[in-house]
Amino acid sequence: MDVRRLVGSNLRRYRKAAGLSQEELAHQARLDRTYVSGMERGIRNPTVLVLQDLASVLDIRAADLLIEQDEVGN
Amino acid sequence: MDVRRLVGSNLRRYRKAAGLSQEELAHQARLDRTYVSGMERGIRNPTVLVLQDLASVLDIRAADLLIEQDEVGN
Repeated sequence: MDVRRLVGSNLRRYRKAAGLSQEELAHQARLDRTYVSGMERGIRNPTVLVLQDLASVLDIRAADLLIEQDEVGN
Repeated sequence: MDVRRLVGSNLRRYRKAAGLSQEELAHQARLDRTYVSGMERGIRNPTVLVLQDLASVLDIRAADLLIEQDEVGN
């Protein structure tokens, strides 16, 4: 899977699990909502610092955004 | 730990384990050697596509570059 789509599907899943809207997540991570929307659609190519900012809002590890769903737990 | 320094120390460890020089890794990942050198020193802010390119050369997951050494194995 293209790593951008992987990050996007993971971001959406963790965001929903945290009960946040794209707007709320973007605001807390100091990003534009359209950037978060683009990331979830797999069309953005975020840097590791963006992953770190989103991960700290979602209380996960930046690595978690890059782990395939069926690999979760390893 | 700053995520850029985490990626840098992981990159260096996996590169050495693969027996590659910075030059060889950069060439295979279609990156400039100075970019790989800067990444290993924690002063670059790579995108997920760069992580993916490096990971495929090193035969690891992109996520492995973001996992803290003491977390390896989970």
